Amino acid sequence: LFEEKLRELEPIFYPRSIAVVGASANSVNAGSAWVRSLVAADFPGSIYPVGSSGGRIANLEIFPSLRQVPGEVDYVIVAIPRQSVLELLDDCVAKNVKAVQFFTAGFSELDAHQGRRLEQQMVERARRGNIRIVGPNCIGVYCPEQRIPFVMGALGRSGCVGFVSQSGGIAGKLATLGLARQIDYSKGVSFGNGIDLDASDFLQYLAADTKTKVIGAYLEGTRNGVRLFGTMQSVARVKPLVVWKGGRTEAGAQAARSHTGSMASSPAVWSAALRQVGAVEVYSLEELTDTLLLLQQLGRWQGKRAAIIGGLADGGGGMSVSAGDACTDNGLEVPPLSPETKRELGTLLGEEGSILHNPVDVSQAQFRGLATLFRAVDLVVDDPAIDFVLIQEDIDIVLPIYSRQGLEKISEFFIHLKSRQNKPVVVVLPPGSAEPERLQTEQKLLKGSLPVFCSVERAARALSNLNRYSFRRGAS
Amino acid sequence: LFEEKLRELEPIFYPRSIAVVGASANSVNAGSAWVRSLVAADFPGSIYPVGSSGGRIANLEIFPSLRQVPGEVDYVIVAIPRQSVLELLDDCVAKNVKAVQFFTAGFSELDAHQGRRLEQQMVERARRGNIRIVGPNCIGVYCPEQRIPFVMGALGRSGCVGFVSQSGGIAGKLATLGLARQIDYSKGVSFGNGIDLDASDFLQYLAADTKTKVIGAYLEGTRNGVRLFGTMQSVARVKPLVVWKGGRTEAGAQAARSHTGSMASSPAVWSAALRQVGAVEVYSLEELTDTLLLLQQLGRWQGKRAAIIGGLADGGGGMSVSAGDACTDNGLEVPPLSPETKRELGTLLGEEGSILHNPVDVSQAQFRGLATLFRAVDLVVDDPAIDFVLIQEDIDIVLPIYSRQGLEKISEFFIHLKSRQNKPVVVVLPPGSAEPERLQTEQKLLKGSLPVFCSVERAARALSNLNRYSFRRGAS
Repeated sequence: LFEEKLRELEPIFYPRSIAVVGASANSVNAGSAWVRSLVAADFPGSIYPVGSSGGRIANLEIFPSLRQVPGEVDYVIVAIPRQSVLELLDDCVAKNVKAVQFFTAGFSELDAHQGRRLEQQMVERARRGNIRIVGPNCIGVYCPEQRIPFVMGALGRSGCVGFVSQSGGIAGKLATLGLARQIDYSKGVSFGNGIDLDASDFLQYLAADTKTKVIGAYLEGTRNGVRLFGTMQSVARVKPLVVWKGGRTEAGAQAARSHTGSMASSPAVWSAALRQVGAVEVYSLEELTDTLLLLQQLGRWQGKRAAIIGGLADGGGGMSVSAGDACTDNGLEVPPLSPETKRELGTLLGEEGSILHNPVDVSQAQFRGLATLFRAVDLVVDDPAIDFVLIQEDIDIVLPIYSRQGLEKISEFFIHLKSRQNKPVVVVLPPGSAEPERLQTEQKLLKGSLPVFCSVERAARALSNLNRYSFRRGAS
Repeated sequence: LFEEKLRELEPIFYPRSIAVVGASANSVNAGSAWVRSLVAADFPGSIYPVGSSGGRIANLEIFPSLRQVPGEVDYVIVAIPRQSVLELLDDCVAKNVKAVQFFTAGFSELDAHQGRRLEQQMVERARRGNIRIVGPNCIGVYCPEQRIPFVMGALGRSGCVGFVSQSGGIAGKLATLGLARQIDYSKGVSFGNGIDLDASDFLQYLAADTKTKVIGAYLEGTRNGVRLFGTMQSVARVKPLVVWKGGRTEAGAQAARSHTGSMASSPAVWSAALRQVGAVEVYSLEELTDTLLLLQQLGRWQGKRAAIIGGLADGGGGMSVSAGDACTDNGLEVPPLSPETKRELGTLLGEEGSILHNPVDVSQAQFRGLATLFRAVDLVVDDPAIDFVLIQEDIDIVLPIYSRQGLEKISEFFIHLKSRQNKPVVVVLPPGSAEPERLQTEQKLLKGSLPVFCSVERAARALSNLNRYSFRRGAS
């Protein structure tokens, strides 16, 4: 599917050389930042800074014009005023460049009439020279495998999550949240006004890309809805597709018009279309990243029957109640544990009534040691009546009861559990007063490929999203 | 209103002396933890540890029984097995104790029949001796002014937010989240099974308490709905009352039964009743604390017309879009700025089209310095067409552009703005890759009495809750 896109966009995600037009030896500007980011990220191909200042940047010669660059140039990043973009495109044609990304802004998003005309001229000139355009008004490509960072510089590990974003700000935020939450991207792209290549092209590329298993999208609008929804339908058939539509409301749409020049369209129409094409619609940055994280960790998994361990140590009563509510609110089930599990838990933890229910109370284990706690969790995970286990681990409570060493052992047990079982264990680490220990635990669990969330509501919502996708496709 | 409750519950929130029954010189248990917490918190009255071990704890003598305590005892904290509670109540009567809090659990929440009978016997015995009971199955009182911490020990500053919670876990979490987010409590109470004093009593107390300006409640059920809703109606007339009802769903209600022995009741009935009595219903711990924080910072404020500054520095386009959506989703308005503000912003920042809209783009200020940024924010805040300003400050973006020093100055400007204007400024600090700087900035702003949230969705929801309350009462 869409195999031809791999070849077509190869110079964008895997360029052998990159020129950055708008670099300067003296001033701090976007072009210079890009050069420094590429150098710092160890981009393996040639990097050619271009700018009128001459001199050097990051130990590289700055060429006065693109035409004077000695080697071949696959890809050009452009950060110069819009007045010069047509001329630059002529230079690109002369240099036989494959693709150009325009950071430059101030087109149709600024002035619907004049801006649109300039955009059309750019497209015409690029088409004649057989050049593809990313943008304008965008931060372009993020490809950890090829060591291409965004202009901000940070670069995560190479992974299986691909994303497209109309907004550079959201694209950048996805990249940094990926670093913070161990979401590893295959590649991402911010395409701004999308005057040539747009969401459809990049979604087709990600569908064909074997490195990409899961796709997220932030979209504000489209100039070709028929193509976009047709594409999304084909894409969602082969890979989970999670879409956040910005500008659903008039206030949001107003912002979208001046942001990427996107025209408003009815949110009801979008939602209905997304449902119809089999994409999962999400409604915030948090929900998008939560859902991508879960898809990365669990893959094509489905199951609605939750076992909830309200608190690992103590004080989990109220959290059991709200976790039960959060699961039910999101269409998940909290069925009774099977009689055998109840009996064994009773033998293990004593005849306290509450442990026999789901949500499960394992707090009695604190008086019997970690081995008992782990055995209790094992029993719950092994219960055939449930599909996954949601564990709330409140560091404020676990730390004083089990100590720092115990906390480490609990994390190791969870990670071991994950590799031993094919039943998902989802961990909720609510914020509190022991933030350093909580963040450490979060990193350890995330690096052990466990999905971690900061509230049961967010965990339940993401799990529900996974079910919505998998239910359509069937788990495989 | 409810003046008599102040006298009635005085020994609970302002005891002159506290005995802790169940302390031990040798073992780590709840009673010992309580003694240590009270000592560490500098509780100003007498503390009498009671336990069969004899010996000393935290430099205090442990008395073998309550009757042998030499001085008068206002308040008793009980952490002994349930088999001994009736006998202990006899001791309390003999010592002329005013109130007893039972940490001890295992009553009606464990066994509906036998547990309930024991609870009835406890109440009868206490009534005869003129003693009030808090609990059982609870962690009791939190009163920073009188230096009474929960058993976990941490104690925040004394403030204006009061809370009641059926759950000890949620009560503890409210206390620690208060420390983390600078929500300062007047007093809080966890009352568990509430066999004598229950939600109604404590809500009446908080309504009468002059230190308390705002009230939050986590409730799972009630044994006397008529009294509770009557109380809530009276309370909500004089102070904002925010209620999170746990156990709305069958899975949640199931957990609530084994948690505090609360019987299920229809969530629709609860929601309708809460609306009718003028309380604001919330649906998660996050929403409860967000709303309490906003009420603490803004008091009885109302206003729906938001000006949104999508990003302080750069990359705020996508965030403007989603902030517009989040505000509209929550019933807030994002009206155009007035012509004068638009003109002045245009003069200040240049003739870029997007800044003339709301959400506002002030990113051009980065090329003109902080004074320009502050002037631009001032112009937006001063606009008579808007009621409050929602500013997204993405530390990942602000830090590289304005540096650490600039970040400090921006925080100081916001705090100064807050004291100069009576128009609320709400700051959103989204998580990212500069967490230490973000958390520092959050603390600085929170300590400067600015409301800070980690997403526009949560900010908009809390603002909407404030409007729902104030709209009924009228701001004063």
